[in-house]
Amino acid sequence: MSYPLDDTHDPKLKSWVESANDPATDFPVQNLPFCVADRAEEPGETDPRICVAIGDQLLDLLEVSSAGLLGADDGDIAMALQFETLDDLASLPTDDRRRLRMRLVELLTDKSDDLRSDEELVGVALFPRAGAELLLPFEVRDYTDFYASVYHATNVGSMFRPDNPILPNYKWLPVGYHGRASSIVISGSPVRRPMGQLLPGATIEDGPPAFGPCKLMDYELEVGFYVGRGNELGRSIPIDKAEEHIFGLCLVNDWSARDIQKWEYQPLGPFLAKSFATSVSPFVVPLEALTPYRCRAMERSSDDPRPLPHLTGDMDRETGGIDLKLEVLLASAEMRKKGIDPIRLSSGNLKDMYWTIAQMLTHHSSNGCNMRPGDLLASGTVSGPKRESRGCLLELTWDGDPFANPPVSKPGSARTPLKLPTGEERKFLADGDEVILRGYCERDGFRRVGFGECRGVVLPAGD
Amino acid sequence: MSYPLDDTHDPKLKSWVESANDPATDFPVQNLPFCVADRAEEPGETDPRICVAIGDQLLDLLEVSSAGLLGADDGDIAMALQFETLDDLASLPTDDRRRLRMRLVELLTDKSDDLRSDEELVGVALFPRAGAELLLPFEVRDYTDFYASVYHATNVGSMFRPDNPILPNYKWLPVGYHGRASSIVISGSPVRRPMGQLLPGATIEDGPPAFGPCKLMDYELEVGFYVGRGNELGRSIPIDKAEEHIFGLCLVNDWSARDIQKWEYQPLGPFLAKSFATSVSPFVVPLEALTPYRCRAMERSSDDPRPLPHLTGDMDRETGGIDLKLEVLLASAEMRKKGIDPIRLSSGNLKDMYWTIAQMLTHHSSNGCNMRPGDLLASGTVSGPKRESRGCLLELTWDGDPFANPPVSKPGSARTPLKLPTGEERKFLADGDEVILRGYCERDGFRRVGFGECRGVVLPAGD
Repeated sequence: MSYPLDDTHDPKLKSWVESANDPATDFPVQNLPFCVADRAEEPGETDPRICVAIGDQLLDLLEVSSAGLLGADDGDIAMALQFETLDDLASLPTDDRRRLRMRLVELLTDKSDDLRSDEELVGVALFPRAGAELLLPFEVRDYTDFYASVYHATNVGSMFRPDNPILPNYKWLPVGYHGRASSIVISGSPVRRPMGQLLPGATIEDGPPAFGPCKLMDYELEVGFYVGRGNELGRSIPIDKAEEHIFGLCLVNDWSARDIQKWEYQPLGPFLAKSFATSVSPFVVPLEALTPYRCRAMERSSDDPRPLPHLTGDMDRETGGIDLKLEVLLASAEMRKKGIDPIRLSSGNLKDMYWTIAQMLTHHSSNGCNMRPGDLLASGTVSGPKRESRGCLLELTWDGDPFANPPVSKPGSARTPLKLPTGEERKFLADGDEVILRGYCERDGFRRVGFGECRGVVLPAGD
Repeated sequence: MSYPLDDTHDPKLKSWVESANDPATDFPVQNLPFCVADRAEEPGETDPRICVAIGDQLLDLLEVSSAGLLGADDGDIAMALQFETLDDLASLPTDDRRRLRMRLVELLTDKSDDLRSDEELVGVALFPRAGAELLLPFEVRDYTDFYASVYHATNVGSMFRPDNPILPNYKWLPVGYHGRASSIVISGSPVRRPMGQLLPGATIEDGPPAFGPCKLMDYELEVGFYVGRGNELGRSIPIDKAEEHIFGLCLVNDWSARDIQKWEYQPLGPFLAKSFATSVSPFVVPLEALTPYRCRAMERSSDDPRPLPHLTGDMDRETGGIDLKLEVLLASAEMRKKGIDPIRLSSGNLKDMYWTIAQMLTHHSSNGCNMRPGDLLASGTVSGPKRESRGCLLELTWDGDPFANPPVSKPGSARTPLKLPTGEERKFLADGDEVILRGYCERDGFRRVGFGECRGVVLPAGD
């Protein structure tokens, strides 16, 4: 079910777009992530185009298609490339998408001279990534957020329920909830600190809530995946077919207001603590590009229950994981003013998730819920067992550590601030802070496949 | 902030569409709810048209507009009527919508002869509601479900937390959660019983979950409201402006799988227990039509906290309630086979909600979350203080009654089945059961304003 290795993964492939051959680039010809760039030249106009990233350039696929270089028998692809988002392209059969990928690799390497030899076309279709205005790649009609890192769930659970951090359902099903689609924004969009109801103390006994700016603003490092082909309402997606319904992956920052969340979330879950903004990276890395980085799903311990049959697939166990390295960086306003580079707060890996992306999608549709092309499913905070692999400040500045030996499980309020190079301290985000997520896959014998960045600066609350 | 009484509410207005003058009709000329009907004549084609209901007829507004009867200065309205859903119409300024309403009342009464005198146009534009194929009126890009009935929350809370049924946040903010937009279906669509993970006993201690058909399938009687004009991300909607952002109301059946819900819902809220289907009625009653039925918001007791200032509006307290009578009816497959009419299971009233629709919308946007035209917000189960006003089977067949004097607060499992005329019994829904929601406003000196029906038959689980 995961895609086999093929010619498009060959590390010896070189592109005539020279920057794509730089070993440090996120975007070699083996990657070819999709994005949507606004190519309008006049202010006030928009001209969104579906592109792939190649080195430090973007390739406008509508121009390539209009020049007839994608093959006369690919009418569906040509049609899909005329839209302003990837929704239609994602809905095509996986064979169509693989054929498009193969053809783009040909056109960008010496396997074909069709594009390279047409200087005029290259002049129109290829343009610098730097300065390009990137848009939301999908419309995203439904957004779902999971909670698939057992390390994250254990850390957070330990703060609020030290004796019982992991609820009984956690290891039986991928816990998730519906998110807000309207407030998904593209990387680079500033994010306003939300207002909300906050308690002055630990509980209502300490005084009534007041309405004011969130004081405990946080990021969450997540990986998202977009649905490709959907399923009909009332029909589920079997685990062995799940990856055929996944188009590609991106980085997600699930901004969170911890004080709003604590007061509002029972009994129906997070709501306004999350719905003020969710940032996504502009590049959608196709699942096909990740084949060299597939790995075993996280091993269950002997104490853990076996997943139920509908969530168990042989292939999913063997290759359902993804060895995707992730980083969070922070630059305060003062750091940026003084020209100090962002500092790394943490690094994690998607392979540390308790549930695979196929298990999340299959579970989501197991009640017959219909998925549509462009629906976004996010992993939940990616945290690992170590302190430096904690994917949000709620965990990162917390003094407890249930994975230490012996465990250190302190109440939620005991925190040690992070120190920034300017001498500033952070338990949670301050206005002006810029959060930067990065992701990339690396393995000996294969080219690096990068996800680019997902950025956002915190604006002060209020109008 | 709620709309004033005007000529369109005059009970003496008569329409030349005779069926609209029947005192029992849901759709007098004082109502004029919007819907979308497919007028395609060839199989396989679609031709969705925005209509209003008038008596037993529908009036195709595109035909009326194309004939030039809506006024030359109404280009925005004419444009909005060309779309296949109400999204664009809802996004217009409230003055535009009120002008359209005034004009339609003129055209359908003796205030104007413009439509009535054009027999050819009437022949094309006016067609029978019976047999019309009604579609989803909005695209609904985000769907939010609240929990605004304190009676519902107290009943449900009493089942699971007899000593502490209402959580501390309940009376400070309208608790809500994001729902699934993709599985919203129009009244009349069959609803397949979901599969899901079910525990064999009360807790995991009694045995591990198994995957199978939901055994405790339920409906929830709710009222939905659609957003008209939206708000920009990062900007909230003040309580005194909230109703200007509400287009109209409908009936909602928030189908629920109680056994799936109980196992999955902690800590992030309901997910697959709800996302398999949500049914909406086809008619959207404009807020303007409900003016005669506005009433005081539910009175707080002296023990209840005052809502915080951003959720407090003088007008909202005076007229934020809506005296909307609601009913749930049931017809089993056997009843239908034997020609037995549906029986009424319960009746409630939207005025019994603890939070007003303006409070729900203002709360939702209070963190800067952006609302878009056509977003659906639902009230949560409408239950009242009496046994016969309980809006779902979870409450209706439960033996406890925290509002009785003295209270009868039994654990969640003690249930007495409902008896159907066929001798069948129901604690929860059986395959083949049809659930029918109805809603209407009545008041001496005014015409009845009805919501029509929201129907759905339960199909067996599986493919």
